[in-house]
Amino acid sequence: MATTPFIHDVPAAEALAAWREACAAAGCPARVEAVRLPLSAALGRVTAEPVWATRSSPPFDAAAMDGIAVRAGDTLGAGETTPILLDPGSYEVVDTGDPLPGDMDAVVMREHVHYEGDAAELRAAVPPYQHVRSIGEDVSAAELLLPEGHRLRAMDVAAAAAAGATDLVVRRRPVVWVLPTGDEVRPIGEHTGPGEILDTNSLMLCAQAEEAGCEAVQMPIEPDDPERIAAAARAAAGECDLLILVAGSSAGRDDYTASVVERLGTLAVHGVAVRPGHPVVLGAIDSTPVLGAPGYPVSAALTFDIFAAPLLAGLEGSGARERPRARARLARKLASSMGMDDWVRVRLGRVGGALVATPLPRGAGVLTSLVRADGLLVVPAGLEGHHPGEEVDVDLLRGIGEIGRTIVAIGSHDLVLDLAASALRATDPDVTLASSNVGSLGGLVALRDGLCHVAGSHLLDPSSGAYTLPYVERVLGGRDVAVVRLVHRDQGLIVAPGNPLDVGGIDDLAQPGLRYVNRQRGAGTRVLLDHELARREIAADAVSGYAREEHTHLAVAAAVAAGRADCGLGVLAAARAFGLGFVPVAQEPYDLVMAAEALEDQLLAPLWELLASPQFRSSVEGLGGYGTDEMGRRIL
Amino acid sequence: MATTPFIHDVPAAEALAAWREACAAAGCPARVEAVRLPLSAALGRVTAEPVWATRSSPPFDAAAMDGIAVRAGDTLGAGETTPILLDPGSYEVVDTGDPLPGDMDAVVMREHVHYEGDAAELRAAVPPYQHVRSIGEDVSAAELLLPEGHRLRAMDVAAAAAAGATDLVVRRRPVVWVLPTGDEVRPIGEHTGPGEILDTNSLMLCAQAEEAGCEAVQMPIEPDDPERIAAAARAAAGECDLLILVAGSSAGRDDYTASVVERLGTLAVHGVAVRPGHPVVLGAIDSTPVLGAPGYPVSAALTFDIFAAPLLAGLEGSGARERPRARARLARKLASSMGMDDWVRVRLGRVGGALVATPLPRGAGVLTSLVRADGLLVVPAGLEGHHPGEEVDVDLLRGIGEIGRTIVAIGSHDLVLDLAASALRATDPDVTLASSNVGSLGGLVALRDGLCHVAGSHLLDPSSGAYTLPYVERVLGGRDVAVVRLVHRDQGLIVAPGNPLDVGGIDDLAQPGLRYVNRQRGAGTRVLLDHELARREIAADAVSGYAREEHTHLAVAAAVAAGRADCGLGVLAAARAFGLGFVPVAQEPYDLVMAAEALEDQLLAPLWELLASPQFRSSVEGLGGYGTDEMGRRIL
Repeated sequence: MATTPFIHDVPAAEALAAWREACAAAGCPARVEAVRLPLSAALGRVTAEPVWATRSSPPFDAAAMDGIAVRAGDTLGAGETTPILLDPGSYEVVDTGDPLPGDMDAVVMREHVHYEGDAAELRAAVPPYQHVRSIGEDVSAAELLLPEGHRLRAMDVAAAAAAGATDLVVRRRPVVWVLPTGDEVRPIGEHTGPGEILDTNSLMLCAQAEEAGCEAVQMPIEPDDPERIAAAARAAAGECDLLILVAGSSAGRDDYTASVVERLGTLAVHGVAVRPGHPVVLGAIDSTPVLGAPGYPVSAALTFDIFAAPLLAGLEGSGARERPRARARLARKLASSMGMDDWVRVRLGRVGGALVATPLPRGAGVLTSLVRADGLLVVPAGLEGHHPGEEVDVDLLRGIGEIGRTIVAIGSHDLVLDLAASALRATDPDVTLASSNVGSLGGLVALRDGLCHVAGSHLLDPSSGAYTLPYVERVLGGRDVAVVRLVHRDQGLIVAPGNPLDVGGIDDLAQPGLRYVNRQRGAGTRVLLDHELARREIAADAVSGYAREEHTHLAVAAAVAAGRADCGLGVLAAARAFGLGFVPVAQEPYDLVMAAEALEDQLLAPLWELLASPQFRSSVEGLGGYGTDEMGRRIL
Repeated sequence: MATTPFIHDVPAAEALAAWREACAAAGCPARVEAVRLPLSAALGRVTAEPVWATRSSPPFDAAAMDGIAVRAGDTLGAGETTPILLDPGSYEVVDTGDPLPGDMDAVVMREHVHYEGDAAELRAAVPPYQHVRSIGEDVSAAELLLPEGHRLRAMDVAAAAAAGATDLVVRRRPVVWVLPTGDEVRPIGEHTGPGEILDTNSLMLCAQAEEAGCEAVQMPIEPDDPERIAAAARAAAGECDLLILVAGSSAGRDDYTASVVERLGTLAVHGVAVRPGHPVVLGAIDSTPVLGAPGYPVSAALTFDIFAAPLLAGLEGSGARERPRARARLARKLASSMGMDDWVRVRLGRVGGALVATPLPRGAGVLTSLVRADGLLVVPAGLEGHHPGEEVDVDLLRGIGEIGRTIVAIGSHDLVLDLAASALRATDPDVTLASSNVGSLGGLVALRDGLCHVAGSHLLDPSSGAYTLPYVERVLGGRDVAVVRLVHRDQGLIVAPGNPLDVGGIDDLAQPGLRYVNRQRGAGTRVLLDHELARREIAADAVSGYAREEHTHLAVAAAVAAGRADCGLGVLAAARAFGLGFVPVAQEPYDLVMAAEALEDQLLAPLWELLASPQFRSSVEGLGGYGTDEMGRRIL
């Protein structure tokens, strides 16, 4: 058996510099070739030489207003009481943009001209060059219009045309080839058997390359065979400006990227001080840069951002595109291990005027954490983390305006919130409902701490039998709070189709051999389970699998569907979604809690409108196990 | 003659709402059609329906580390002094991502396993689900992955693949047709005669549509003939989702857009309270939205941003893309007339830690003001402007990081600065030199006010005959200032080729009939002229054209080249650029002034390196009329 493999922790900036140096030493070109493109095809490309104007714009002295062109000298002495008359020949009618005729050098606005027969009457003298756009006012011939290394936008190509260009010399798009590796990897669209995974990384890396303005080619998947990987890599290196090898970048039994790169060319870096993304390979094969990306999707995505994107921009002779940035207050403590840049995905919300960042799950395998993220926060290698409430810089993945127009829901997970999110967006693209699932109790605490607009809750108070309100009093006591009913829903035991183990209810959970899958502490469903166990005097550790915690109803159902558990408490809709059996346990209300003033907030108005809509109610009932009679009713 | 035409001042938001209403009433579709695209083709498109997961990811409980899979229950009691041995069969070697075999429910990291023969020795008990990625950890089947109306990024398509999708239902790209009009408008690439202009607006508007993710089609230019414009517009309306008519949107003699739209369909708005951009036409022909854009290029560009972009995003079911925003301190007073949103282009610079915004020329015809702008600042209709030093919100056109890495030069114009800007960028894409031309004196004042890093100056002090230093003392007295020589340069009278009027020098400027073109007050060249006139006792008003002020050497040369003036004072390089004659008047030093501490600033280091480079010196000498012997020498 292998001992701990030798992977370094090279700081990101150092790794990038080492990679660039190694590429230069291996003879990789500093820039991709320059090509001459017509203006209409040059948009988004980077200039490969400075663009000098060869023509002035406007190319003549031009009228800047509709009116008459005159000689300023002819108007000397004109005034309210001493009007002067200009005969035809001493003035000429011009429209905006017309060239100034002959030796005329000023324009009088149409509104200030009166006519006495053919003669134009002026009641004010006119300074030379009044309302005239001088030749070259916009750009003079021989002026530097754009420097080399400038990424062309719409106004740039138009200005280049005005300055006399019909085509421009620009860098061609860099070409990126992506080579997926792994015995267990299957192309998207194919059936995956046990232990097999889909090649989502190649799709993502190609898409990232396209977002960076490159051409991307996805190669066929190679198995974990160093010879085949080497052959494919060598063939690819001759065809592209950057080769990305996917997975196999660590030092496991089937990880060949580092050794292949070392054998065929230069291995510059193996392992960077970045998390997620640690096992990165940077090198060159022949005269082509090679990036070995880790197989975890978040690692792969960040590796592209941190290493491939700046390298590719450099090949175009341009700086890497940068993300806008904002300051936000951290919702909770954020621990981070020293020695690694920690890239944390965060949700952002503008609650009570302040921008608040809530960290998302940090696993390198949780791609949805990147999908749902509004921003990225880097805890630098030298820090152990941040305190709650600390102000941090966040790189934005969504527009700050859109973030400000987002209804932030934190609390219990329910499919109805998902349905509402999509329905709101469909009605008005400017409305976003973002929900984070931290359980009912976590939602109330988030509301107390000013982290969300609404908290979804279905917390049973065992002593009173009442739902949510006793907890609102406990967590938010003394505040002016409103509670709006969302739905009633059926909770029950989600079991295999046909209930083969014949689970009858909570009483059976202590049955030996029955594998339960639980929800996390603070979840309303967990409270319900604990209550039901307690009143039957069943001890938690008598329930096999009690320690396995999932964060959503659907994750519980997924575990049952996969045969990794025999049952778990959850809503009917989740069981239905997987075609599973369902043993009813209780019906419970699910409510939305918020500050009372939020009821009047414009931001939330679309949500109240939605809850009143009969179409929405019937689509909720279509999920199964939901009652909408009280939907939208204020209960506190 | 027509009286003042009837154009309204409809506030922008109201105008957009009225346009949308009119479009709905005319039967324009609310959304473009949905199409089903493979994932790899869906990047950048907007979802037309919610994306629900049909597959969990990971689809099985998987090892999250390289190591061995075990049953947690088998490890109870293991400790440093009570190791336990697991026989083969009770453990299985797994790599990251492998499914957990059989009923195994935890993973021990490779580093923590020792082997005694075949048996694995553990010195710590393992909790259930340690180092296991639960089925559905990333996404559970039946979960809402993406709402309707979501613009797809790389991570979104990858997550959709992981969640079981192979294609997605998205909105097709909206199609924009652009119809240029005007007798004087010529296609790009054609020769323009007197009074003719190039059709740069269609190029720009098509490019803006492409930047907004649309397909764009540029139509042939139609002359100012309402029948032909109407026929072309009606034909186009059937083919596209938005028709843009270029120019003719005002109420001049040849402005037909409003009447054509009114005749063929609905004229919703004519004239908006936006500057530049006031004469905008918004309406619909048949069931297609129509935008009549003004002919001034800055107006056309802003009109697209303010009206077309949100309409097109709405057709995709998405919110309009937004620009990042920053707060900046205004460099100088900014006046604005009430009643109009005033869109001001600004340069931004980070000088001494603060972000400072300097307004650029505000003419609607100055497209280069948009090219050179780092941001846009809107002075709302209700304000008369801003005080100097006031904090304002700026929409960014360049990344804030790039802006922070920009050397800001304000002062006298010289071609050598243009050359330096391009050479710096070519060497390192991360370095930008942005220079604004406000004349030598303006540059020193800007430096004093903390608006720039360096000020280019060649100010003659007539009493001492010395250049720049006396002014530095006057404007920046008491500060620790450094002055670095850039070049010596030849100033002289720029005249027509072959000097047909036989201009001999300054003495001839008062010659009757000779048309001079001047530089603006505060320009070093203007100071030089005034000095030369004064010592000859020639009065300024004896010089015909003394009042015509241009802001650069090249603009002076352009005026002479176009025959609008007979001569003007400027540098040899400008005369050469236009193939003009040149009558030497003086040789003068051109210097860079800065705070002494700036010499040590990392930001400016590339500039000093450049000035020391022999290649750069020789390319400067190639311009003609420049001496580089003292280039880079600190003279104060």
